[in-house]
Amino acid sequence: MSNRIIALITDFGYRDPYVGVMKGVIKSINPGAEIVDLTHGINRHNIIEAAVVLMVSARYFPPSTIFVVVVDPGVGSNRRAIVVETSNYILVGPDNGCLSLLALKDGVKRVVDISNSRYRLGNVSHTFHGRDIFAPVAAWISRGIPLEAIGTEIPVDSLKTIRIEPPRISDDLIEGHALYIDIYGNVMTNISEDEAYSILRLGDKIEIIHQGGKSQCMFTTSFSIVNPGEVACYINSWGYLEIAVNNGSVADAFGIIQGSRLLFKKLP
Amino acid sequence: MSNRIIALITDFGYRDPYVGVMKGVIKSINPGAEIVDLTHGINRHNIIEAAVVLMVSARYFPPSTIFVVVVDPGVGSNRRAIVVETSNYILVGPDNGCLSLLALKDGVKRVVDISNSRYRLGNVSHTFHGRDIFAPVAAWISRGIPLEAIGTEIPVDSLKTIRIEPPRISDDLIEGHALYIDIYGNVMTNISEDEAYSILRLGDKIEIIHQGGKSQCMFTTSFSIVNPGEVACYINSWGYLEIAVNNGSVADAFGIIQGSRLLFKKLP
Amino acid sequence: MSNRIIALITDFGYRDPYVGVMKGVIKSINPGAEIVDLTHGINRHNIIEAAVVLMVSARYFPPSTIFVVVVDPGVGSNRRAIVVETSNYILVGPDNGCLSLLALKDGVKRVVDISNSRYRLGNVSHTFHGRDIFAPVAAWISRGIPLEAIGTEIPVDSLKTIRIEPPRISDDLIEGHALYIDIYGNVMTNISEDEAYSILRLGDKIEIIHQGGKSQCMFTTSFSIVNPGEVACYINSWGYLEIAVNNGSVADAFGIIQGSRLLFKKLP
Repeated sequence: MSNRIIALITDFGYRDPYVGVMKGVIKSINPGAEIVDLTHGINRHNIIEAAVVLMVSARYFPPSTIFVVVVDPGVGSNRRAIVVETSNYILVGPDNGCLSLLALKDGVKRVVDISNSRYRLGNVSHTFHGRDIFAPVAAWISRGIPLEAIGTEIPVDSLKTIRIEPPRISDDLIEGHALYIDIYGNVMTNISEDEAYSILRLGDKIEIIHQGGKSQCMFTTSFSIVNPGEVACYINSWGYLEIAVNNGSVADAFGIIQGSRLLFKKLP
Repeated sequence: MSNRIIALITDFGYRDPYVGVMKGVIKSINPGAEIVDLTHGINRHNIIEAAVVLMVSARYFPPSTIFVVVVDPGVGSNRRAIVVETSNYILVGPDNGCLSLLALKDGVKRVVDISNSRYRLGNVSHTFHGRDIFAPVAAWISRGIPLEAIGTEIPVDSLKTIRIEPPRISDDLIEGHALYIDIYGNVMTNISEDEAYSILRLGDKIEIIHQGGKSQCMFTTSFSIVNPGEVACYINSWGYLEIAVNNGSVADAFGIIQGSRLLFKKLP
Repeated sequence: MSNRIIALITDFGYRDPYVGVMKGVIKSINPGAEIVDLTHGINRHNIIEAAVVLMVSARYFPPSTIFVVVVDPGVGSNRRAIVVETSNYILVGPDNGCLSLLALKDGVKRVVDISNSRYRLGNVSHTFHGRDIFAPVAAWISRGIPLEAIGTEIPVDSLKTIRIEPPRISDDLIEGHALYIDIYGNVMTNISEDEAYSILRLGDKIEIIHQGGKSQCMFTTSFSIVNPGEVACYINSWGYLEIAVNNGSVADAFGIIQGSRLLFKKLP
């Protein structure tokens, strides 16, 4: 029995037995599997959020970790269930884009359709493929069943992908948007560290233009540098430009939701 | 050391260290025990909810899994603490009915009173038997201590049971009630798959009569078949008739709570 | 590979991948590490709450458990990152007092500064030391790296400490305060069992004076002894005087928050 890690991302929350039952299924197939909860707090049916979480988190896991993503508004419809083998990982989930940001970043080696895999549970329900397809397939892979036995290989370019619109950058302005908002209300943008540093330097004064108006802040290293209640702008721990209010929620303060347009103007 | 699974169901939520401390107790006794969180999100003191979760979930776990249920409004009173050996599992918890739905479904082999077991912690508190009785007893069982050493056998028919009132079925009408409401607001009824199919066929138009009024929907395979905001009625992944609003909460929309009466009328 | 327990206390909540990524880091360094979630529900930046949880929980874990506490409002500022070796445990976290209640209770053997440890991740962010410093240091310690290799020993008395003001006790009155409020709204005070019993006996009638007014209740063994909706006062499972409303929230009923002053007057 291999003790490979199976990491779970779902939008099942923490109230119901859905995640626990997936773990029961995995342990029934591979008692040695190590299961790690990456998060079950993805906003319901929010494929982009799941894709972003997977993209930023994967590199902190051992190579050949199996990631199972169950954010699956189309369960019971005709969307495909797939396994994606990337350069470093195995990704298991619905073919709705939730696997695609990491897949494209890490490099896709193979895509396999598991919609009719014989490594599913005996009775596949119409509403809970996390339990009936994704968990057992991940468990069998963790036991060493090769992907060619798990399902039918399909063209890599048939993978359904989502893309994050890149920021627009000019001399003193970066136009981006809110990519992920965390539990503290900190707002991670789609602007990478390199893109931010292409026009900003630590200590620069910045005007942030958002739908709620305009705010000024410093481009600094951390929210803890500014006083409680003040806005800070910094490269976050995933390598993206982020805004926060020390000890507060910048998302609430400015009315920012995922996708909200955000302009960062460098002040003289 | 055995690495048997100990699966936990509690109403402790996720804010306090109660569950973590139970795990510390288990690991102190059996470092090899595999602990799985089935859920800690049971509504406070909701014995029926815990019993339903245990009943539907158990079959997805390996045989001889030890389930510990701590939904225990009577802790510190004179309710008994018990272990139930069923055909396939070991159940540990208070004798308040929370173990009974699974016990009766799976078949009871033995019931043991652990109120005064010597396999409890040294100082048993009046308010936290999850830590002081149920966790250590489960851990010792997982290490192989036989039930006859764990406590005193008591008559099987002394087990406190709850029962789910069966639905009433006529030619074109099923009268049931809401058994479990999940985090999405989907409403699982007490109507089994067989009972539903006794008068319904896929594609049938149904009128649902609830306290908020009447609604029409299709008897279909999944909530994802209908348009966002529309009501669907289907057999859920546990094998019970369920109603849902695609991308919404049918419980909120109709004001349904656990126990609410629900009529399903087959339309011509 | 050692399978020592690494227990986690954070204020990261359950929505974001922060905790999951810490687990990925730990498992990348020591695949055999056993990770236990003590809680991730500490109120944001509430150092006292984290310190109390650690203090009361630790004794239920095996000796030499490694506790990692990430409640870190000063991340990115110049606060130190430390490891504290106590008589029975290893504590890892920021030097902001969150480790100090357990450290002083259990006895400090050594304090090590890990702010510049070579056992951190390659790129240390300014905002997520849980992932970049505390998780990897804990994982390396669990693999057997000695503390002298992990960081620089610093004087024990340089440890930043918080203290809980002791209650004031007179003939018929104990003046204390709310130390921890749990998810049920039960209020644990700073009054220990011994202090409570110095003037109270089971069955005593007590007047509780709080900012919302006065209430009477019985000093009893458990909240389950009183009727639903009634106030009870008892020694809780951690050994502290606690007040609760059976099936309700005493914190909400009386407007009690952490630190609220509470007087317990023994009635004749």
